Amino acid sequence: MRIGLQAFLSGVVAASAFGQGQPAGGGFVKEFGTMWTFDAPPLEYWKARYGFEPSAAWLENARLSAVRIPGCSASIVSSAGLVMTNHHCARACITAVSPPDSNFQAIGFVARDEASERRCPGMTADQLQSITDVTARVRGAVTGAGATPGRRVAQRDSAIAAIEQDCARESGGTCQVVGFYQGGRYSLYRFHRFTDLRLVMEPEEEISFFGGDPDNFTYPRYDLDMTFLRIYQDGAPLRPTNYLRWSAAGAKEDEPVFVVGNPGSTGRLLTLEQMAYLRDVQYPALLETYAEQIAAYKQLASMGESARRQYENTIFSLENSQKAVRGYRSGLVDSAIMARKTGFERDFRTRIAARADLRAKYGAAWDNIAKAQKELASFARETRFQAFTGSSLLGVAGALVRLPEQAALPDSARLPAFRGDGLARARAAVLRPQPVDTAYERLLLAAQFRMAQRNLPAGDPFLRAALAGRTPDAAAAALVGGTRLASVEARTMLVEGGAAAIAASTDPMITLARAINPLATGHAMRALGINAVISANVELVGEAIFAAYGTSLPPDATFTLRISDGVVKGFPMNGTIAPYRTSFYGLFGRSAEFDDQPPFRLTDRWKGARDRLDLGTALNFVSTNDIIGGNSGSPVINRAGEVVGLIFDGNIESLPNRFIFTDEVARSVSVHSQGILEALRKVYGAERIARELGVRD
Amino acid sequence: MRIGLQAFLSGVVAASAFGQGQPAGGGFVKEFGTMWTFDAPPLEYWKARYGFEPSAAWLENARLSAVRIPGCSASIVSSAGLVMTNHHCARACITAVSPPDSNFQAIGFVARDEASERRCPGMTADQLQSITDVTARVRGAVTGAGATPGRRVAQRDSAIAAIEQDCARESGGTCQVVGFYQGGRYSLYRFHRFTDLRLVMEPEEEISFFGGDPDNFTYPRYDLDMTFLRIYQDGAPLRPTNYLRWSAAGAKEDEPVFVVGNPGSTGRLLTLEQMAYLRDVQYPALLETYAEQIAAYKQLASMGESARRQYENTIFSLENSQKAVRGYRSGLVDSAIMARKTGFERDFRTRIAARADLRAKYGAAWDNIAKAQKELASFARETRFQAFTGSSLLGVAGALVRLPEQAALPDSARLPAFRGDGLARARAAVLRPQPVDTAYERLLLAAQFRMAQRNLPAGDPFLRAALAGRTPDAAAAALVGGTRLASVEARTMLVEGGAAAIAASTDPMITLARAINPLATGHAMRALGINAVISANVELVGEAIFAAYGTSLPPDATFTLRISDGVVKGFPMNGTIAPYRTSFYGLFGRSAEFDDQPPFRLTDRWKGARDRLDLGTALNFVSTNDIIGGNSGSPVINRAGEVVGLIFDGNIESLPNRFIFTDEVARSVSVHSQGILEALRKVYGAERIARELGVRD
Repeated sequence: MRIGLQAFLSGVVAASAFGQGQPAGGGFVKEFGTMWTFDAPPLEYWKARYGFEPSAAWLENARLSAVRIPGCSASIVSSAGLVMTNHHCARACITAVSPPDSNFQAIGFVARDEASERRCPGMTADQLQSITDVTARVRGAVTGAGATPGRRVAQRDSAIAAIEQDCARESGGTCQVVGFYQGGRYSLYRFHRFTDLRLVMEPEEEISFFGGDPDNFTYPRYDLDMTFLRIYQDGAPLRPTNYLRWSAAGAKEDEPVFVVGNPGSTGRLLTLEQMAYLRDVQYPALLETYAEQIAAYKQLASMGESARRQYENTIFSLENSQKAVRGYRSGLVDSAIMARKTGFERDFRTRIAARADLRAKYGAAWDNIAKAQKELASFARETRFQAFTGSSLLGVAGALVRLPEQAALPDSARLPAFRGDGLARARAAVLRPQPVDTAYERLLLAAQFRMAQRNLPAGDPFLRAALAGRTPDAAAAALVGGTRLASVEARTMLVEGGAAAIAASTDPMITLARAINPLATGHAMRALGINAVISANVELVGEAIFAAYGTSLPPDATFTLRISDGVVKGFPMNGTIAPYRTSFYGLFGRSAEFDDQPPFRLTDRWKGARDRLDLGTALNFVSTNDIIGGNSGSPVINRAGEVVGLIFDGNIESLPNRFIFTDEVARSVSVHSQGILEALRKVYGAERIARELGVRD
Repeated sequence: MRIGLQAFLSGVVAASAFGQGQPAGGGFVKEFGTMWTFDAPPLEYWKARYGFEPSAAWLENARLSAVRIPGCSASIVSSAGLVMTNHHCARACITAVSPPDSNFQAIGFVARDEASERRCPGMTADQLQSITDVTARVRGAVTGAGATPGRRVAQRDSAIAAIEQDCARESGGTCQVVGFYQGGRYSLYRFHRFTDLRLVMEPEEEISFFGGDPDNFTYPRYDLDMTFLRIYQDGAPLRPTNYLRWSAAGAKEDEPVFVVGNPGSTGRLLTLEQMAYLRDVQYPALLETYAEQIAAYKQLASMGESARRQYENTIFSLENSQKAVRGYRSGLVDSAIMARKTGFERDFRTRIAARADLRAKYGAAWDNIAKAQKELASFARETRFQAFTGSSLLGVAGALVRLPEQAALPDSARLPAFRGDGLARARAAVLRPQPVDTAYERLLLAAQFRMAQRNLPAGDPFLRAALAGRTPDAAAAALVGGTRLASVEARTMLVEGGAAAIAASTDPMITLARAINPLATGHAMRALGINAVISANVELVGEAIFAAYGTSLPPDATFTLRISDGVVKGFPMNGTIAPYRTSFYGLFGRSAEFDDQPPFRLTDRWKGARDRLDLGTALNFVSTNDIIGGNSGSPVINRAGEVVGLIFDGNIESLPNRFIFTDEVARSVSVHSQGILEALRKVYGAERIARELGVRD
């Protein structure tokens, strides 16, 4: 029998540190996942877990074959600079290169030859050249305890800027100082930036996003979410030293695989109290708002076919956000998952308490955070509702009321959004013409008032000012119907009239904003102070984590290059088991089973290719690698360093991994390299690309 | 937009009663489901819900086309007596008609012509002829309040026997008195029994049970769980007046469909307290036992390949029971589902309390049941462990110890199992030679002891007697290793030696059984008294339900003919949506996605037929009909009375329906009539049957 990752990593298993430069301590904690940095690959763990000992050349090839593109990951997969990423990562390029009379997003694009490859305007790809620890230089720039928190932040930021500028000047590369462990460590990442990327091939959206929003974040899955680009240098295809070879066989069940890419953001170092705040305050409020917004948009969409089309995408998008937040929260309400986190925090605090120097420096941080989070929670309902939210007209009214008031204050006493050039930007924003959908404004504002009624005590000043004894619907109708703020002229007169015009205005939205403003500003300033305390202590916890565990715990995601290990593996689902991979049979099946209706419709190109396809070919697969948004487009490679897949999503069970990594049922979802090749050849006639991938029949 | 069933039926929607003979009151309560009896079809509800008004002839044809076969349902689907049921309902026949050198279960069977059809030994099919209310005759036979509960039960049972005998004598049919509403109503069901059924066609098990235990109770699904039989009368195929026509198009999304069959058993009339007992006492104990048994069998199975084969089926079967019980319990722990039940019980008790006569007769029943259930719960741990369970050797020892003791008592004072001819049967049972698997006995007994340790207080007399200071493993090893009860000779000597031999025995298992026996007997007698109280009050609740709601609430399942309405409809699942139907593409897909490994392997016959099949053909589908075990093999018919499908399972989300019916995600799973026809023609070359189904190209 195989040794399961969970068995190997259950609890805190002592292990020595590895890689260069890590401090004393160490130990694996499964809940922190496997987003390893390239300067601290967990070589001993890989050896023990998989019997896998990559050479320095293997690691270097993985690192230099990976490129970061805007918002996503990608990799170089041929000796002629071919780049593989997701279709959903290349949308901006695909749209930009579509001719006026055509929509490549809808119909797909295959360049016959190099000359037909189309340049993606403004697109760049960053290749990671080196990583240097600059923690000492950043810390050294911050003078002692005498400085205010604001001063210390400014010192740190200017040190970081100086390091980045020095690096860029010396190397000619693109340089970024990345804070790890919430500020526990700083590393200088130096990149080579490629600036000429061209579109080589992309399938139509109906196959790249087959199953649409319903299937998004789920598995089993049948998406060909791929796009091929090419890097050009000096007008010719790049001839890279490093690129990934292709595996025609692709991912096999139970084999270890590695994802090389740029996970965007995780919250695994958050303390228990920070997670509790998300679970009990922030996410419930967000979910309540989504539910009200979805209901309002559905009401609008029910008005007729054109309304349905107008609001459909907004509804889908909100439902997807709802799905995601519910997923994030589901881990936080799972007592078994939270028990692991609790166990870790206990171990962590015990390690800190055990050494006098660490205890003195970090010991109070958790309680300081807890106290601050509790204070934030104590007026969270007021912060949420005694505010200019729920309608863009109310938002505009709030900005109009605040403009003269904030302008009269010294810069440092203003609300952050009005500091520096914020004031000018806020002014420009309210003067910009914007279409106002009054039906939508009325419904959303009524929904906001209903939520306020549910959440605030009866005599609350916001409720008194907003409702004045009316129902939420009546109040919203009167406000939206009575205000003139939809007109740029009205807004301009109020801006130019300054404080006197605001004070004299009888516009009902301005009147309401004037009543809310002292409350809203008070909450904002109070939260500002509390959040500064949280930030300072979060940084202490980050330093403490690094002091106690070193790089044996991978840091939270930072949208910089990581390598995550995992295993190709199905999972228990819905009373049965999900297979480790899907097939073209399954694709045609899911389409047939929804009677070929969108978003399960297959294009004519695919229907026509059916008899050429080997329908048993693997299309998507799942693995236990640790990924999150930003990893989209990452290559999945095997022990030989060959591409076996292309990351494009996680299953719905993986959403809680944002906070606590688990791999019992959480899975990464990839396009299988077999499926990519089969589609290139049999559907897209792109034998040129298949050959370039170095695969021969 | 369609009006959802849940909107229509949410809460208790007033509606007048229908059908014949129902008392005042009425109202739909969704939680009681839709297993309607044929003497009280909900005509007004169907009209309101579907605009469907079946004629008397429609209902008669549905009733007379349905036949009940042992443990299952079936239907007549041709003018030549062809009968459709599930493959898993015909196993006994299939095994019996297999020639010595062949296994039709594994390879399938298709009769070329009538002469090749093989008679199923002992198989019968019952066709429901009439339903007569006999409540008054049954009640009249029970004399007043003076009689003991036992006497009243005997009076009732002999009245029922007399009614059945009178009916059989007068009609020559098969007659059964069915108690509905827990004894609130009695109906005489008269059947015509067909006794010559022959096997016509059955597919191989790898396709009829494709996906095996993992996919069992789940959907999406890809099973051809069908078998065709034929009724013969006087040596020739039956020429029935009533049979179901075939729909080649089959079930369509959103259409109303009706399931005609024999649901076996539900517990929807249970009171809240009875459900709480299942949820908190009985099911947790069962689940703990399953878990220990599965662990023990897995340990045995890990000993080698032959052990794996030996125990594999037992493990699967236990895992399936575990899946089912977890599913049943999941509804009982779901606060939203239980809130509906609580709401109903409140409404129900209010109705009873509102009428003095009903209040006087029924008002105390709920509290009486609650008190009795609480008392049962108070010694449930002792009943469970101070008993002869966990090992068949211990069970034999218990029977040996009890035999002379119970024989010495007057019949009415004995434990129920030893009353009447029970004594002789118990004696015969212990004297029968039985193979004993000592490895298994030791593990299971140790597991039982471990559970006892977890559940009982430290000084418990059972623990003292069983363990005597040893570990569970050591005690089990000593008991199983030391006893001679595996030998028939040893058992015979003890039986023949009577009480003296038992008292003198030093066999460790007998010694333990002697110590347990007074405790076990005490608990059993105490439970007997309490259960009599529960039975009497449950019957009162049943009468009260019928008094308050009449036949507008369908009674609990009784394995007699029902007609359930529903709609063909997918459901939300695992973050996305399950389609209303699956396809042959999906079948080949699921096989490919598990690399054609069992239980997802396709036979060569199916692989060979692939290119002949229209892979988009519907294979299985789901609908909101209300079914449970016993419904297997039921036809699904459309408004035209045509067969659109064949019930064979429910999804895992439907398991809680045993207690509280819901249709948000619970679904019945059927083979689609399209898929049946496609397989008959393209895979099995059974054009003869296809033609007989009356379908022409």
